[in-house]
Amino acid sequence: MRTRPLKVALLGCGVVGSEVARIMTTHADDLAARIGAPVELAGVAVRRPSKVRAGIDPALITTDATALVKRGDIDVAVEVIGGIEPARALIMTAFEHGASVVSANKALLAQDGAALHAAAEEHGRDLYYEAAVAGAIPLIRPLRESLAGDTVNRVLGIVNGTTNFILDKMDSTGAGYQEALDEATALGYAEADPTADVEGFDAAAKAAILAGIAFHTRVRLDDVYREGMSEVTAADFASARAMGCTIKLLAICERAADGGSVTARVHPAMIPLSHPLASVRGAYNAVFVEADAAGQLMFYGPGAGGAPTASAVLGDLVAVCRNRLGEAKGPGESAYTRLPVSPMGEVVTRYHISLDVADKPGVLAQVATVFAEHGVSIDTVRQQGRMDGGGDASLVVVTHRAADAALSGTVEALRRLDTVRGVASIMRVEGE
Amino acid sequence: MRTRPLKVALLGCGVVGSEVARIMTTHADDLAARIGAPVELAGVAVRRPSKVRAGIDPALITTDATALVKRGDIDVAVEVIGGIEPARALIMTAFEHGASVVSANKALLAQDGAALHAAAEEHGRDLYYEAAVAGAIPLIRPLRESLAGDTVNRVLGIVNGTTNFILDKMDSTGAGYQEALDEATALGYAEADPTADVEGFDAAAKAAILAGIAFHTRVRLDDVYREGMSEVTAADFASARAMGCTIKLLAICERAADGGSVTARVHPAMIPLSHPLASVRGAYNAVFVEADAAGQLMFYGPGAGGAPTASAVLGDLVAVCRNRLGEAKGPGESAYTRLPVSPMGEVVTRYHISLDVADKPGVLAQVATVFAEHGVSIDTVRQQGRMDGGGDASLVVVTHRAADAALSGTVEALRRLDTVRGVASIMRVEGE
Repeated sequence: MRTRPLKVALLGCGVVGSEVARIMTTHADDLAARIGAPVELAGVAVRRPSKVRAGIDPALITTDATALVKRGDIDVAVEVIGGIEPARALIMTAFEHGASVVSANKALLAQDGAALHAAAEEHGRDLYYEAAVAGAIPLIRPLRESLAGDTVNRVLGIVNGTTNFILDKMDSTGAGYQEALDEATALGYAEADPTADVEGFDAAAKAAILAGIAFHTRVRLDDVYREGMSEVTAADFASARAMGCTIKLLAICERAADGGSVTARVHPAMIPLSHPLASVRGAYNAVFVEADAAGQLMFYGPGAGGAPTASAVLGDLVAVCRNRLGEAKGPGESAYTRLPVSPMGEVVTRYHISLDVADKPGVLAQVATVFAEHGVSIDTVRQQGRMDGGGDASLVVVTHRAADAALSGTVEALRRLDTVRGVASIMRVEGE
Repeated sequence: MRTRPLKVALLGCGVVGSEVARIMTTHADDLAARIGAPVELAGVAVRRPSKVRAGIDPALITTDATALVKRGDIDVAVEVIGGIEPARALIMTAFEHGASVVSANKALLAQDGAALHAAAEEHGRDLYYEAAVAGAIPLIRPLRESLAGDTVNRVLGIVNGTTNFILDKMDSTGAGYQEALDEATALGYAEADPTADVEGFDAAAKAAILAGIAFHTRVRLDDVYREGMSEVTAADFASARAMGCTIKLLAICERAADGGSVTARVHPAMIPLSHPLASVRGAYNAVFVEADAAGQLMFYGPGAGGAPTASAVLGDLVAVCRNRLGEAKGPGESAYTRLPVSPMGEVVTRYHISLDVADKPGVLAQVATVFAEHGVSIDTVRQQGRMDGGGDASLVVVTHRAADAALSGTVEALRRLDTVRGVASIMRVEGE
């Protein structure tokens, strides 16, 4: 074994970074044996140097992250700061000064992955980021390596633990959205400002990363259609149950049937209880992958948290260190298919629509005519009188597969009908 | 991109090999783009050259596999023959002549992995074998790479599709073992001679491979305790249901609590219905991995079949070809912990024991005394009169965690009691 250690700059020492540092210290011998050389924490860049950090030599702490990555002797920079800047500039500087990079930064990768990969390529260094999607679950490596000889057609995943916790709670207890969110906040599953999670921004960043890797093309955050789950109601869960379904916030990346384009989207959707994703509980994540030869695969585990994310970071660290020792480079960006990303209007799926309608003869015929005029074929309709006896009824329509644009046109036309009091909810039905 | 192709020798062209050849042909451009150079099928070694093989140039077919791997221009040999010889000799010859090897051969890897790895190391070549365990499910790569910075404590898996199909059928229809086996045979899930599957030999080979990789040590096939599932009865399933469990044939690899040894075993076991493995249906495989930092992960998918296995082979082929191009070497054997494999007697788990006993006072006290004398603590006992009114009763004992040797001693002593007519079944309880 080589005795000169590989030097690691740790950028950020929060929940994830402190776990990375801890495991690097407590498992130094294991890491050395697995890499073929010892790894040494050469510096830890933090914002608050006065904070006590157990197990980390205070002499390693610095507030000057730029100087740390510019030292010139850093083999690997581990970026666990998150957000766009200064993470982006630090990664670029690290590459320029000869370091490989391990990052857990989904937002940055989703927004600027191409430029980061190009910089890694230019300097002959590695950019690994297993921890950026679904925490500890091996997903990036299986997609970019294990399935490198296959054709992935769909990635369907629960990639945000906070929203899965909330939806699971609503499903299992009948709680409303706000009540479930409050519990998630109290338990530390949701942040004080839960917008990034509940409005699907976090999942959209992950969808962009997964779609790009799965389809060997570039998918940016802006390409991902996004709908949050803050408007999902207890009534939606009741409707889902009536269909043998539950509701999950899904990230869905699909190759079009003709193979000529891809789509990426995040929204709440009904999925059958028999689907493996339906039984993913609490804050767990799971990603379902469909490939030509492999068939249906699922990857399941904790999608967040300090230790699980650190596990993914350290797996990448071992791989990148091995590459440094062997003067090798791992797989870089694979975007050769240059498949365009189609807009949401071209996505084809099924829909569950609840309408509040006047309780009089002929309404169903009117509604059915609107669907037909827009080329949306109806699978089932359920009509029921309302409990409040106000002369209204509700109509639940489940469609066959239709383009999202056709469905939007249908809903717009439905809203113009005198007999339609309101569109109570529209939800996609996936995973069938 | 390099234009000179990498040359692949395909050893075996059965169910898996023909799929590998087909995808290499139909997806040649994708593979070239992902590898960075075209790959060319340089020869296909078969036993029956007269068989028509659609899509394969007849000029590539040879019956002389040894001459093919000795050509000297082969970059990668893909071994999908199975069994020990001639696969072993061909792989060794391939390494000697400068080729890297991709293999799907679980039996060979389990029996002789160390020698094969040593040969790969000696010649500076890669040995990849993702397809050897659980077909298309990425498992070897996640264990050897994604979790390389973590400490794996347990691997618990359904790694044989045939037996899972049979047990799932027994569970869902109440069928007996023979009836379920007959259906598996009729549907092509079980071979004419199902011994390797139902007696656990196939799963034991996979357990040896997984344990070695997970714990960075050497585990040979002989180290794996093995019990088949041909004696599981409909009554066992009824007992399992009464406990909120189902029965699966599990491969279980564990690190001892003190970290100083490991165990590997294959046997039928009860697992709670709430465990993710309980809902793995039909011929699917799934492997549950517990690691210090990552927590609980699960990998799920088709564990066999031509196309899924070919997907795994081709993922390895791309990785190995990329290494050849970059003059790099992927991870080799990691057995540095040299942890000893403990015998089955030292495994600690829970047990479900059904006894046929005389229906008279004092029997329970006698039985309980035997357990106590052997240091096996009882969790619950259920006593019930028999339907046949023959003066017998049945006693179902579920123990707390105990060493297998202590349990064996207990059962031996129970058999010697006059009041115990027989031990109807003993089954381990896992996954709690």
